Amino acid sequence: MASSRDGYSWTEKQGLKSGVPCIGTIQPPTNLDRASTEVFDVIVVGAGYCGLTAARDLTTSGILVADNPGSRLGLRTLLIEARDRIGGRSWSSDIDGYSFELGGTWIFWGQANVWREILRYQMQDELVSSYDFSKGLNKYILVNTERAQHFTHEEEDEMMESGLRKLVNVDGEYGKRVIPFPHTAAFTAEALRYDKMSVADRLSEIKDSLTPNELSGVEAFVLLCSGGTLETTSFFEFLHWWALSDYSYQGCIDYLVKYKFRGGQSSFAIRFFREALASGNLSYAFNSPVAEIDDTKDFVTVSTRDGKQYRAKRVISAIPLQVMNNVVFNPPLPSGKRTAASIGHVNQCVKVHAEVRNKDLRSYTGIARPENGLFYAFGDGTTPAGNTHIVAFGGQNGHFDPEDNIGTTARKLQGLVPMDIERLVFHNWSKDEFAKGAWFFSQPGLLSNHLGDMRARHGKVIFGSSDWALGWRSFIDGAIEEGTRAALTARTDLAPSQLKGKL
Amino acid sequence: MASSRDGYSWTEKQGLKSGVPCIGTIQPPTNLDRASTEVFDVIVVGAGYCGLTAARDLTTSGILVADNPGSRLGLRTLLIEARDRIGGRSWSSDIDGYSFELGGTWIFWGQANVWREILRYQMQDELVSSYDFSKGLNKYILVNTERAQHFTHEEEDEMMESGLRKLVNVDGEYGKRVIPFPHTAAFTAEALRYDKMSVADRLSEIKDSLTPNELSGVEAFVLLCSGGTLETTSFFEFLHWWALSDYSYQGCIDYLVKYKFRGGQSSFAIRFFREALASGNLSYAFNSPVAEIDDTKDFVTVSTRDGKQYRAKRVISAIPLQVMNNVVFNPPLPSGKRTAASIGHVNQCVKVHAEVRNKDLRSYTGIARPENGLFYAFGDGTTPAGNTHIVAFGGQNGHFDPEDNIGTTARKLQGLVPMDIERLVFHNWSKDEFAKGAWFFSQPGLLSNHLGDMRARHGKVIFGSSDWALGWRSFIDGAIEEGTRAALTARTDLAPSQLKGKL
Repeated sequence: MASSRDGYSWTEKQGLKSGVPCIGTIQPPTNLDRASTEVFDVIVVGAGYCGLTAARDLTTSGILVADNPGSRLGLRTLLIEARDRIGGRSWSSDIDGYSFELGGTWIFWGQANVWREILRYQMQDELVSSYDFSKGLNKYILVNTERAQHFTHEEEDEMMESGLRKLVNVDGEYGKRVIPFPHTAAFTAEALRYDKMSVADRLSEIKDSLTPNELSGVEAFVLLCSGGTLETTSFFEFLHWWALSDYSYQGCIDYLVKYKFRGGQSSFAIRFFREALASGNLSYAFNSPVAEIDDTKDFVTVSTRDGKQYRAKRVISAIPLQVMNNVVFNPPLPSGKRTAASIGHVNQCVKVHAEVRNKDLRSYTGIARPENGLFYAFGDGTTPAGNTHIVAFGGQNGHFDPEDNIGTTARKLQGLVPMDIERLVFHNWSKDEFAKGAWFFSQPGLLSNHLGDMRARHGKVIFGSSDWALGWRSFIDGAIEEGTRAALTARTDLAPSQLKGKL
Repeated sequence: MASSRDGYSWTEKQGLKSGVPCIGTIQPPTNLDRASTEVFDVIVVGAGYCGLTAARDLTTSGILVADNPGSRLGLRTLLIEARDRIGGRSWSSDIDGYSFELGGTWIFWGQANVWREILRYQMQDELVSSYDFSKGLNKYILVNTERAQHFTHEEEDEMMESGLRKLVNVDGEYGKRVIPFPHTAAFTAEALRYDKMSVADRLSEIKDSLTPNELSGVEAFVLLCSGGTLETTSFFEFLHWWALSDYSYQGCIDYLVKYKFRGGQSSFAIRFFREALASGNLSYAFNSPVAEIDDTKDFVTVSTRDGKQYRAKRVISAIPLQVMNNVVFNPPLPSGKRTAASIGHVNQCVKVHAEVRNKDLRSYTGIARPENGLFYAFGDGTTPAGNTHIVAFGGQNGHFDPEDNIGTTARKLQGLVPMDIERLVFHNWSKDEFAKGAWFFSQPGLLSNHLGDMRARHGKVIFGSSDWALGWRSFIDGAIEEGTRAALTARTDLAPSQLKGKL
């Protein structure tokens, strides 16, 4: 299996190694003829789930002119990607027969867009649960500066649910009145108000009602979601996650951290890519960071950093918000979009996988507050070697670069629970120039001021990203939602005029 | 707007009238050239959501032979339908600017397949809630042989939740251990056991723990789901609905009876049809009941009752289980499939809409047990004339044909709550020769014995229907799940051999 440049792995024997195996690495990186001067129907910039969905939908479907049945169906599409692999912020590495998820991981059947694809590719029986509460150390361990307390998982659930319900219960209906319908761009008046607040603001309102352990749990859970700080986390956006998760802690667990692919996210993403490829309509160029998108002529010209130029009738930009201002747009992006991009999101999640020799840790969950760098962790699987796979999360609070000093990283893991580490696997999203952070999470005000700006098209350039999805924003589901929307927009644009009203 | 032959409406002035307006009525009924002898890629039999999804996916997407870029994409598809309209068991009638849902009605964002389509067609802001608890008679009225009791909706929720939780709590986890993953064909051992039981069997185990009002509520709710009797309702299948609805009564309300389209289901179904049509690849023949499907030659031949014959490389049969044995298959269907079809399902739901002059009934919900014919009803909307729209349900228990005697039908409505009826709208699903009942609901044993049989293909004939979906079986979501699967199966079949492994 080819390795991506992305990611790190460490074992005592091997030391720290940059680049990990990934079935989503595409070799050779392009199928373009060097001399090609084709004007594509659509160029898709970015091969994460949004771009992959758009490329698949465009290449495999299209509009036939009704009175010209011989015309070609399916749109000629060029997929341009800065990295050497598909998947964007969701990708997995297969090491010794086991998948480590370097980015977005979990999906659930209540997420319409991703679940539809899982059914479509008949992968519903390839899911595994991250949790297994049948092993020895079947505990929730809450570490703070004074001590480590052990609880059963039932006690964990009770504390988390009780704390979170106090956090979200701004309306006597646990957030349901504020966000009755979590799949719309329309904000209720109350929702607007809560987007002006941070979670820190909200916590200061209710802190007297929370027990110290509830507060620790709530803080850790919110920071797990946002990857920011309590001050930079929009309270509305947290409520939105809560609403999407059926307004319950159990829903949060089911939706956010439970089911993953046995073969890893890249085993799913590759299905989209292969299907697009099988259409015969897909060209692609990996290792091709985009420098400029020029929409001042009949066709849009996309220039890469290495000086290549490609032309198309439409461009779908699946460039993440956080790095959008790295690309020159001509004409310049409208100020709302530029402002949103310069504000960016707050998520500097640090996700570290540890393969450990402690079998009992399979059933462990725990948090360490307030300042351990890695503050939330749980048993995430059992490797073929019989070791336990622990996944641990940090964020903006006490942010660190795990590759800088493996000893420090190991100590932060030990700060959660003692473990005998055999292997570490991680990707540094904060230093990733094509992401500059992990999944989207908004600071107060960004969504109510700029969601519409982020979603708007700009001339012949259509913008799609999980970062501004309506429903499962920040999730794989939202990326597919947006890829679907972007492809349909381009397809409608390019339809013969007599068909436009009919789609 | 054209009228369908299906459905009935009644007003005092107009009397009983057969056939109601429906935007899903297709006129003229065919776009086929009389002389056409085309061999289609695929014939889809049945234009409900499964068939519509399959036809759309087939006509708008396809596989281009990689080394023959000039070849046509999209599969030539013929959609054959017995009725004069699309939608099958889900269709709506627009009367005086208001939509009445004659069949399947409600959808929810946790239903992946249908929600993906709603987002794709950007219809998420066209939903309305059936419930509005802001009006005068804001009550749950429970009628039994002795009396009518009035409760608040909070009391209703408490009674229903308490009763249903007792019903489903066979495992100490409210069904979650029995059905941990409701989207698979694999049954747990416990699930198998509960598919041998009826809800009546289960109720006899727990009847001492239910209050009389809880029992009435539980019975009414189960019968609302199954349209059968307590004895013919598989306890497993009810648990499966419960599991799909997030294992909670609130989930049941959200998923099963809350959100519907302002413009009716036919406003959604027509989008699939129009998109398929815009591909230029769709032929269709309505008013064309199929008599025989012959798969003994190179191409499959579909013969209609009026003596026409059509040929295709593959056939997708979206014929409902209940009427499958009306069609002659050659070679005959395998015995498992024939047995399943002869067992059929148990749902003889009677659904009656009443437009009533009582404005206060907008906030009414109620049940009438045990023998009112219409046993479950609630306020479902306000018409442009300012009247209240009440929807009422009956089933196999005390089954009746609403068109037989309007006075009797009105009395059954009055048996729920006094109302001043201006208009009635309904469709008689039991007398509908192309449905012979409403949505699929299984008797004990059918699913554990025959789900695999129902799903299996038979030579070049692929079987798709909500009746045997894995997830939201019986629902619009399940129909789309199955249409997606059937289309992808046909498409993979017809792919050039060198591409087969790649999809």
